[in-house]
Amino acid sequence: MNAKRASDSQKQRPEVGRILADFCAELKFESMSAAAVEAAKRGIADTLSVALAAKAEEVAGVMGGFFAEEPGKARVWNTALRTTARNAALANGAMAHAHDFDDGNYAMVGHPSAPVLPAILALADELAASGADIIAAYAAGVEMEGRLGIAVTYEHNGRGWHTTSSLGTFGAAAAAGNLLGLDGKLMLEAFGIAASLASGLRQNFGYMTKPLHAGFAAQNGVLAAKLAKAGMRSSPNAIEGHEGFFDLFTDPEKLNADEAIRDLGLSLELIRNNPKLYPTCSLVHPALDLVTEGIASGEIVADDLEVINVGVSYHALNLMRYNDPKDALQARFSIPYCIAAALAHGDVTLGSFSDQSVAGNEIRGRMGKVNAYVHPDLSTKEQFEKVYTKGAAFTEIEAVHKSGKIHLKRQSVAVGNHQYPAPPERLRRKFETCAALSVGKPKARDLWNMLMKLETVQWSEVDSLLDE
Amino acid sequence: MNAKRASDSQKQRPEVGRILADFCAELKFESMSAAAVEAAKRGIADTLSVALAAKAEEVAGVMGGFFAEEPGKARVWNTALRTTARNAALANGAMAHAHDFDDGNYAMVGHPSAPVLPAILALADELAASGADIIAAYAAGVEMEGRLGIAVTYEHNGRGWHTTSSLGTFGAAAAAGNLLGLDGKLMLEAFGIAASLASGLRQNFGYMTKPLHAGFAAQNGVLAAKLAKAGMRSSPNAIEGHEGFFDLFTDPEKLNADEAIRDLGLSLELIRNNPKLYPTCSLVHPALDLVTEGIASGEIVADDLEVINVGVSYHALNLMRYNDPKDALQARFSIPYCIAAALAHGDVTLGSFSDQSVAGNEIRGRMGKVNAYVHPDLSTKEQFEKVYTKGAAFTEIEAVHKSGKIHLKRQSVAVGNHQYPAPPERLRRKFETCAALSVGKPKARDLWNMLMKLETVQWSEVDSLLDE
Repeated sequence: MNAKRASDSQKQRPEVGRILADFCAELKFESMSAAAVEAAKRGIADTLSVALAAKAEEVAGVMGGFFAEEPGKARVWNTALRTTARNAALANGAMAHAHDFDDGNYAMVGHPSAPVLPAILALADELAASGADIIAAYAAGVEMEGRLGIAVTYEHNGRGWHTTSSLGTFGAAAAAGNLLGLDGKLMLEAFGIAASLASGLRQNFGYMTKPLHAGFAAQNGVLAAKLAKAGMRSSPNAIEGHEGFFDLFTDPEKLNADEAIRDLGLSLELIRNNPKLYPTCSLVHPALDLVTEGIASGEIVADDLEVINVGVSYHALNLMRYNDPKDALQARFSIPYCIAAALAHGDVTLGSFSDQSVAGNEIRGRMGKVNAYVHPDLSTKEQFEKVYTKGAAFTEIEAVHKSGKIHLKRQSVAVGNHQYPAPPERLRRKFETCAALSVGKPKARDLWNMLMKLETVQWSEVDSLLDE
Repeated sequence: MNAKRASDSQKQRPEVGRILADFCAELKFESMSAAAVEAAKRGIADTLSVALAAKAEEVAGVMGGFFAEEPGKARVWNTALRTTARNAALANGAMAHAHDFDDGNYAMVGHPSAPVLPAILALADELAASGADIIAAYAAGVEMEGRLGIAVTYEHNGRGWHTTSSLGTFGAAAAAGNLLGLDGKLMLEAFGIAASLASGLRQNFGYMTKPLHAGFAAQNGVLAAKLAKAGMRSSPNAIEGHEGFFDLFTDPEKLNADEAIRDLGLSLELIRNNPKLYPTCSLVHPALDLVTEGIASGEIVADDLEVINVGVSYHALNLMRYNDPKDALQARFSIPYCIAAALAHGDVTLGSFSDQSVAGNEIRGRMGKVNAYVHPDLSTKEQFEKVYTKGAAFTEIEAVHKSGKIHLKRQSVAVGNHQYPAPPERLRRKFETCAALSVGKPKARDLWNMLMKLETVQWSEVDSLLDE
């Protein structure tokens, strides 16, 4: 009886897995628009640079040495080590997400590039991939994540899944599968294997395991694609079938499966990726824009503040849960800390997040001035959902000065969002600042130049610039 | 507000993770009862033997060659290859579960040994482990799975999670952590990492990815324990905290967390493991006992059958979902096929499940006589849950003969269940039959003898018997 009911409800669902598998297998560089190629190149450069900026992070330290005795062809970034593709994907994924400085995507409600690019580049050396191959694989991976994100809706994230890991696993599988040349049938096998590897719990936010989630997704995507190619077989309905991914990872009643496969290829989700300008959870970025601009314009006088009220969605306060962060990882998920850092220095940079700065008084001393609260218009899931994917979940700041002056302002998306693009120069500067931390300034510049013409080069040429 | 609610509900939950981590870290061979040691040795032997029996299975073929270019110290069973610990755990876990002939456990509602033993043995060579070390690690792993299973209740399985994978990940982490000598603090880190790796969807039942799930759990347990040892950090509340394992993998309202940590150590769950006597999903085993015994006693005359009605729980029919299996993997999850195999040969053995036998008419020709249905007393989740963990979810067969004779009988647990133990001789015979498929009869006998005195030997002595 149960089986009957299940197959009935299944009938109403489109074969999302098969349709996306065909699409991701067939996606080629030649069919991409110029805008999509540009977005891909910027996304690839941005992701690589934030991973290189993680060189001194603790998570990079652990991962960098972890595979020392397991040699292979794939580079572990920020080290002289080469290891197996799966190992490198794990280590590099963790580094790409270490600063929480990697890009975001609304459809996915997560970080699209940190799981996808490490999966691709782990295989790039082995396969002697061209820049054009990598661009196409990247587009396939990001599209898979975005499309699945549309299907599972905000419900999936709302339950507590870290989408960067859960959806990222499929993105990495799509990207790795595209690069490995899987046809639609084998891509579907890879998705079925990936479905049984997807995981990642938000309880681990604020700990090293959070960035590691991107690495888990990356390695599992590589594994799923390689296993499918080697002959491992899975359910063709592992995504939409009874007791499949949709049933277990979201509320099946709210599934948006039809939307997820509509107009495939007309416009790629990667065009809507949002690079970050601050190395913190993105949910505090509009507030940081407002505070840094307020300070720069003189509307906010940090030393004259009585209190600064920061009104955000319930979702933002749930994710940014550390009112009293104990280290740099938690500080990135602390609204009081992030705002206090902006008040202390007028900007929030990589230097704002060290265990020393968290323990010290320079920033911490200002945290008492910050009052983060849930804005009444964004206090329920229903209110939030309605505006979030439209990029309209606003942040409101009210800076109350001792002098009596009040500076009140609202902003929705942050600078860097695709609806509010950052000046290209600012993105180039971010790249160079980040990459220089690993390879030095001159090589960082060369890397940027090479990546901006990626479709004309082999990956091995880019890779050689990463030598220590 | 949301954050407040979450932390309130969290307060009511015991720190299951921390308590089980301390227990699993401190579990030593010396503190185990003689009965537990005996159960462990039998479980280890049984698991190894069914993995060796998988030598010719397709999943073993894929996994056996998969890591050919990634050398290491850990043996891939049924091959001459040694690879890294994580790789070996993956390959061996898949082989241990390939025939669905590995043991089961009611508290876990899954297969306890297939994820745990491969995780242990993947590290055994590297660590020069003794037999006693392995017995203790095995006990820790199985106990972790059983205790978590009690906490998440049948709800977890009922949602469609494959517990062998989801709970097995923690079991493998506990076992690997115990062998690696993690203290309680590091074990808890390993559990936190494992929580973000747990997955495994039942939609993949009937495909090669199903046995692979045990390998996923085994490899992820090894990875989690090794990462914790290397310095990776996770949430100390990844299991019971807000947006942690319990919240995402079961119905938090039905959580049984207090029971899961009661009387730790007084009696180990491994004593309640149930070895299998047929290489099929365990839910058809009582029916197979009834049919094979009925044939042996003459109460059932296969060639005179009009129809044989097989009444099972809704759960059994949901899991055993293939009425028309297309290959050996699906045949193990087909009540009509399994019963028809028993009718054809009077027993169900490894030989009953090949793609040839599934395609052929000898067994398939009898499937039309088998009518599997949900018994009205076991048709709802509530009815089933009440009896299942007590081992009282009966099966009823009604063999209606053309001659008019009706043979009606009920049975709850199958022979081999800890409440209905198999004769020791039958378990030894199963071991030798299985192991001989890989190492031949004489070595299979030596292996059994060595494993029955495992606490007195080094693992390397056992391992040397596995050379081709």
